[in-house]
Amino acid sequence: MAMFILICTLLFYLYGETSGFPSRQFFATSKNQAVPFTNAGPEPKFIEKYFTQVLDHFNFNSQFNGTYEQRYLITDQYWKNGHGPIFFYTGNEGDITEFAVNSGFITELAAEQGALVIFAEHRYYGNSLPFGKKDSFKNPEVGLLTVEQALADYAVMITELKRQLGATDCPVIVFGGSYGGMLSVYMRLRYPNIVAGALAASAPILSTAGMGASTQFFQDVTSDFEQCSPACRDAVQGAFIQLENLAQREDYGAIQSSFSLCKAPASGADIHQLKGFLRNAFTMMAMMDYPYSTHFMGSMPANPVKVACDTMMSGADLLPALRDTVGIFYNSTGDLTCFDLYKLYVECADPTGCGLGLDSLAWDYQACTEIELCYESNNVSDMFPSLPFTEQDRERYCTQKWGVVPRPGWLKTQFWGDALSTASNIIFSNGDLDPWANGGVRKTLSPSLIAINIAAGAHHLDLRGSNEADPPSVILARWMESGIIAQWVAMERRKSL
Amino acid sequence: MAMFILICTLLFYLYGETSGFPSRQFFATSKNQAVPFTNAGPEPKFIEKYFTQVLDHFNFNSQFNGTYEQRYLITDQYWKNGHGPIFFYTGNEGDITEFAVNSGFITELAAEQGALVIFAEHRYYGNSLPFGKKDSFKNPEVGLLTVEQALADYAVMITELKRQLGATDCPVIVFGGSYGGMLSVYMRLRYPNIVAGALAASAPILSTAGMGASTQFFQDVTSDFEQCSPACRDAVQGAFIQLENLAQREDYGAIQSSFSLCKAPASGADIHQLKGFLRNAFTMMAMMDYPYSTHFMGSMPANPVKVACDTMMSGADLLPALRDTVGIFYNSTGDLTCFDLYKLYVECADPTGCGLGLDSLAWDYQACTEIELCYESNNVSDMFPSLPFTEQDRERYCTQKWGVVPRPGWLKTQFWGDALSTASNIIFSNGDLDPWANGGVRKTLSPSLIAINIAAGAHHLDLRGSNEADPPSVILARWMESGIIAQWVAMERRKSL
Repeated sequence: MAMFILICTLLFYLYGETSGFPSRQFFATSKNQAVPFTNAGPEPKFIEKYFTQVLDHFNFNSQFNGTYEQRYLITDQYWKNGHGPIFFYTGNEGDITEFAVNSGFITELAAEQGALVIFAEHRYYGNSLPFGKKDSFKNPEVGLLTVEQALADYAVMITELKRQLGATDCPVIVFGGSYGGMLSVYMRLRYPNIVAGALAASAPILSTAGMGASTQFFQDVTSDFEQCSPACRDAVQGAFIQLENLAQREDYGAIQSSFSLCKAPASGADIHQLKGFLRNAFTMMAMMDYPYSTHFMGSMPANPVKVACDTMMSGADLLPALRDTVGIFYNSTGDLTCFDLYKLYVECADPTGCGLGLDSLAWDYQACTEIELCYESNNVSDMFPSLPFTEQDRERYCTQKWGVVPRPGWLKTQFWGDALSTASNIIFSNGDLDPWANGGVRKTLSPSLIAINIAAGAHHLDLRGSNEADPPSVILARWMESGIIAQWVAMERRKSL
Repeated sequence: MAMFILICTLLFYLYGETSGFPSRQFFATSKNQAVPFTNAGPEPKFIEKYFTQVLDHFNFNSQFNGTYEQRYLITDQYWKNGHGPIFFYTGNEGDITEFAVNSGFITELAAEQGALVIFAEHRYYGNSLPFGKKDSFKNPEVGLLTVEQALADYAVMITELKRQLGATDCPVIVFGGSYGGMLSVYMRLRYPNIVAGALAASAPILSTAGMGASTQFFQDVTSDFEQCSPACRDAVQGAFIQLENLAQREDYGAIQSSFSLCKAPASGADIHQLKGFLRNAFTMMAMMDYPYSTHFMGSMPANPVKVACDTMMSGADLLPALRDTVGIFYNSTGDLTCFDLYKLYVECADPTGCGLGLDSLAWDYQACTEIELCYESNNVSDMFPSLPFTEQDRERYCTQKWGVVPRPGWLKTQFWGDALSTASNIIFSNGDLDPWANGGVRKTLSPSLIAINIAAGAHHLDLRGSNEADPPSVILARWMESGIIAQWVAMERRKSL
């Protein structure tokens, strides 16, 4: 194992050729139960199913063994029936089909290793709303939305599906990206009796547990643009200073016209909203800075950071340039004639954005309870306006919005923070372009806690399907991941002999 | 480490001398806050304190960060201040003072290793009733009584007390006996970021998770009496057959007089209660078969199994002999002139007994939810009457009594069952006389998952303070435990350097 890793690491630094992998795409178009996905290519054909899940794993009285229907996608088309491993995606804060469509590496790997593939949807997201659309986000119903309940869902689902599928001896590997990657780590920490290993891509397990500097995230977003061009960074920072000056003068008309806002700002609160709206576009472009166009958490051109910098520096006037730059994210179709600040961006307990719709409500609640995201920008270590978000701000917001008081430190207590010495069989992969990367584990901690850093990689690029435009770093990362996972599966098999 | 264990194991089998350890006793007489215990000897002086604890760790809405007062006992008299380790007892199903008084080994070890000692009381037991005596066992209040909540209590308490005491770098070792030992194991599995190792004495982590034969427990109780004398076992079995014959004939008068019952049985239900009452005395005597008299879960003479067998075989009539035998447990003072079946024994979801009072209510609830105790006797593999207790019986009882439906398999999912290969730094100690032993881990699984089997040891004898009557096996067990724990502490220190 150690030798394998050594060779991989050497290769990782030496390898420099471009990819010869064929491009493979797949699409989910149907949301009906037990109906196969239609696919552009011949594979994979996911079936959408529902699992009758315990509502409250941690209280026998609150719901009296009440259940809800949890969605999952499954395909056995690559599976060596009853023998091959199970690749289980620990769904995160959104519709699970989105993650299945954007995690092609998992099915590619399944084809290679003869695995059954399951993408499980996180409770309170997508179609897995325990109390329906109307009531799931009310008090007290929303209280069952916790990390622990989600993990218990996955543990119970895996155990039961293995039984049903005659797969009790099949090793299970969990996969996840971002928050889903955190859940994969936690599954391995909490349920090593059930999962043999975890590939946690872009999983910021440290920064979401209140560890590290609060300025790191937006500094790293800034860094992506600065790497593209220092002048780009200066231009964005300059534009935000100009905006600040206009705001100080309360020149709301000029602000409206410069940014093509549907409605003129009328207060400091509107300016605050505008700043968040603008910053959020940069966050999304940095996260989704893939070398080809994507449709994941919004539509993006190939290399959006480069496109943004080109746009930012295309004209003499900084404010319209800033408007057009954020338009790459907010107006990818070009259909919008003006920006409706409150419709396009919702401020929430996560300064990196909660998205829109019901899923954003669920994530806001999680950021108000267990997940700590007190990140801030300051226009000094980053190019953004000063937007502080302290623990006090968070508590004030969460008390008012949800009637809950966050518990700082709780996530670290529950999921170990950086005290990972007893953990094993986890790959922490991170892309150097990803602003979440430095909130995660970037150094290999032991022969079985392996950090893979992907040069020129954005947010969990390695989980995406192979693409002709892939940088060599991600091809190598996937190759290493494939080898390590095959070893974990083999080790687990030996254990059960 | 491996060499150390090898030497220990060799010594374990070779060592044969009797103990020269002095006897040490200590008593808790005060329950007031921050008042020192009075002691028979010079030490230890526990202070009783209360910790303001989160009511519901797993739901931010149900109690809105409400708290309760959790009791703990603490002594720093042996502590190398701010440097020595912390020995933390994970309190189980009862008043924590009972466990402190009956776990003298921990303070002896603390004196040896310069440790701070904390005995923490389990929520819903003793004085740690989250909703007071009146309301704690109502629905929905009782729903916060779970293993997970108790573990989270301990994790939060340790973290916060370490901070308060300037002890953030002090390694923590957890100790527990029986269910408390299970909690110690679970603390190490779930919170290795907080605890460096666990001494789990007589912890039946397998049988309480639904693993193993349902007949094992009462077979092992029987075995203790059979080892004392095969004729003793036959006499008990014979007595129960006689009782069965009388019951079949509904000769309730004869039964009343034979067993000195305050009230004659009037139905099959009363006979059922009588059988449970009688069997329970044998269970208690087998568990508490210490070589000196004790006052722990009842008063016992030294070697109660031998006393029982002497009593059982002292007369020609089996039924009065059986009556006098169970009187060793139920009438240790000799004050009772008759047995009140329903006052002395309460049938519950734990066939090995729930005790009496509020604590027994809490344990009954736990046996109705997470802890699986479907043990049964059959008068074939054991000497007791046939008293089946199936999963269906359990569900029926629990639904009726508490309005809850047990979830078989849940404890195994949550706490790994026998899939312990990724665990480390746990001692599983068991006494050969203890009917709980075969429900636990009896074989060493790895160099850091060490089974210590104590010949002639009853229920967590090793946790008790040294006594002149100790068998050599327990002296050696404690010596091994001491050495292993010192190594864990040293290893943990090296990690934090």
